[in-house]
Amino acid sequence: MYTVEYLKNFTFSIFHKMGCNPEDADAISDVFIRAELRNLSSHGMIRIKDHYQLWKVKRINTKPDIRIIHETPATAVVDADNAVGMLAAKRSMETAIRKAGETGTAWVATRNSNHLGIGAYYALMAIERDMIGISMTNANALVAPSNSVSRLLGTNPITVAIPAGNEPPFVGDFSTTPIARGKLAVAAKRGEKVPFGYVQDKEGNPSDDPDIIRQGGAMLPLGSDLEHGSHKGYALGSIVDILSGVLSGANFGPFIPPNLAFMPMPEVQVGKGMGHFFGAIRIDGFMPAEEFKKRMDKWIQTFRNAKPIRGKKVRIPGDIEREAEIKIRKTGISILPSIQKDLKKVADELGVDFNMKRDE
Amino acid sequence: MYTVEYLKNFTFSIFHKMGCNPEDADAISDVFIRAELRNLSSHGMIRIKDHYQLWKVKRINTKPDIRIIHETPATAVVDADNAVGMLAAKRSMETAIRKAGETGTAWVATRNSNHLGIGAYYALMAIERDMIGISMTNANALVAPSNSVSRLLGTNPITVAIPAGNEPPFVGDFSTTPIARGKLAVAAKRGEKVPFGYVQDKEGNPSDDPDIIRQGGAMLPLGSDLEHGSHKGYALGSIVDILSGVLSGANFGPFIPPNLAFMPMPEVQVGKGMGHFFGAIRIDGFMPAEEFKKRMDKWIQTFRNAKPIRGKKVRIPGDIEREAEIKIRKTGISILPSIQKDLKKVADELGVDFNMKRDE
Repeated sequence: MYTVEYLKNFTFSIFHKMGCNPEDADAISDVFIRAELRNLSSHGMIRIKDHYQLWKVKRINTKPDIRIIHETPATAVVDADNAVGMLAAKRSMETAIRKAGETGTAWVATRNSNHLGIGAYYALMAIERDMIGISMTNANALVAPSNSVSRLLGTNPITVAIPAGNEPPFVGDFSTTPIARGKLAVAAKRGEKVPFGYVQDKEGNPSDDPDIIRQGGAMLPLGSDLEHGSHKGYALGSIVDILSGVLSGANFGPFIPPNLAFMPMPEVQVGKGMGHFFGAIRIDGFMPAEEFKKRMDKWIQTFRNAKPIRGKKVRIPGDIEREAEIKIRKTGISILPSIQKDLKKVADELGVDFNMKRDE
Repeated sequence: MYTVEYLKNFTFSIFHKMGCNPEDADAISDVFIRAELRNLSSHGMIRIKDHYQLWKVKRINTKPDIRIIHETPATAVVDADNAVGMLAAKRSMETAIRKAGETGTAWVATRNSNHLGIGAYYALMAIERDMIGISMTNANALVAPSNSVSRLLGTNPITVAIPAGNEPPFVGDFSTTPIARGKLAVAAKRGEKVPFGYVQDKEGNPSDDPDIIRQGGAMLPLGSDLEHGSHKGYALGSIVDILSGVLSGANFGPFIPPNLAFMPMPEVQVGKGMGHFFGAIRIDGFMPAEEFKKRMDKWIQTFRNAKPIRGKKVRIPGDIEREAEIKIRKTGISILPSIQKDLKKVADELGVDFNMKRDE
């Protein structure tokens, strides 16, 4: 087990050594640690190696000039200058929150960015200001539109965080696919099959092979098949791609550059880097925040008191990650031996200390 | 077959006779006809009878004082004074478009409203102004959260309309359930089974009986079961309910009044009427509209040229309804005999002419 403080300092040092100034390295490492705390480790320490390798081949800029290149009172486009995605996202969300403070609500589109980690981090920034926070991002194309075999969409996640009063905030945080990409990778590593409805083969036939994507297959949109509404998942993922990619001036669809250094850049680029879209909505643009929070408590209590299916538990979106965060803050963060090995290698190359632990 | 003009005039007369002023009756009837044109007849003429019956028992106000009761530069709450939903929605979307014109983007939450018909009507209003339009609404609770047997959410649809250049606009328009309520009703009427994944019985077991809701069952969220991401459909439907209902000051979840006169009002009310949420985003808040439209054409062409599964066709969200609209404008609107009978009865009671036709 690692303490939060140890891994935070370690991640800070890695990004500092790669050229980030202390303030930026602090901002970035905070998002990595939060991913581990929320038990979303597929977006946590496992990604340090990818960032290091992208930086080594100069595909990430650790001294970016992140700036607003176009704006109205309630909108902005941020060019992230190929920054680490977490930094681009945090700055963009800060802009959305500032603008919403002035006008009531705001949208900020980010271009020329990279993988942003967990969307919940940014959406939750709004909560503290009595705002609703929204985060979305496009991603590398792995998902086929309904009726197609072409991989054109990423898993394109959406997060919406909504403050409550006595109850904890509502945090809807989901990819627009039946499962996240990471779950397929885990099943493939274990040599396990997955349920039908996650992936299809290269001809569009149903498949239960989590490794099928390497063989020309594709992930399916939320809904899984047309009969169960996959055209809705396809539309939702498309909306995320258009707002994050087309409207921001970033790449979109199959043109998004991969966030792995060993994968070549696409030959055609239709914009700059990867794109995100952030929204902030001031609660008191609609009613006094205290009144809303009481109403929100009532909503949450109503749903929490729903009658469960026998033996099951009804949850409010955000419950699972919040409970994980409370637990992991106490127990510390567990890192798989294979990931520890990767971290050690990066640390050695950058001249940073890292203690391998055997208790995992 | 009926001409568009005939049904438009008929619907106008019905609402005019119920007390709407000519301008309001015109606005309302336009939405009804557009539903028929887009082949969404479950939201078209079939609903005239429901509106008439609600009006007869004074549960809809045809002389409403629709007004903004709270606002900031980019947000507003509209109290619709229990208006016909189509009128409430149109006025609210007009407010969102006006405010977005001033600040760059805006959200309008509507309380004290009723069933708004097709969400695409309002989202599409933004297109003509080079804006992205968003429409969502809560609805009568028929859907159970994941792991629950309680019906707490409506089918809570979302529409996002995005302008393009040479290509027609993108219109993502979908309920947050695998299928719309209307499809269950049709299957039940025909005595047909439905695929598993649409509904569950009163104990939460999978069911293929479209009539199971009358027996204490529930509709399932998009994703159908937890293994296929129903918690994402549940989260998405919840977000629509919270923005439309909690933030507007309307009712939410199981407290939403039914839009059928024979169903009693819920004993507990947590707000006023039904709620909606409308957004408008000025394209030139991000980049010149012409540049965006070229990018959007590229997006649409990329997806239209996706390789189809053998024998299938890849579609852009909005294609099917737009193609229907072109066709039905030419052929005229077909009305089922049973609906004609209902329309005739309403017409007779209000003293309006209606010609039954045998060509259906």
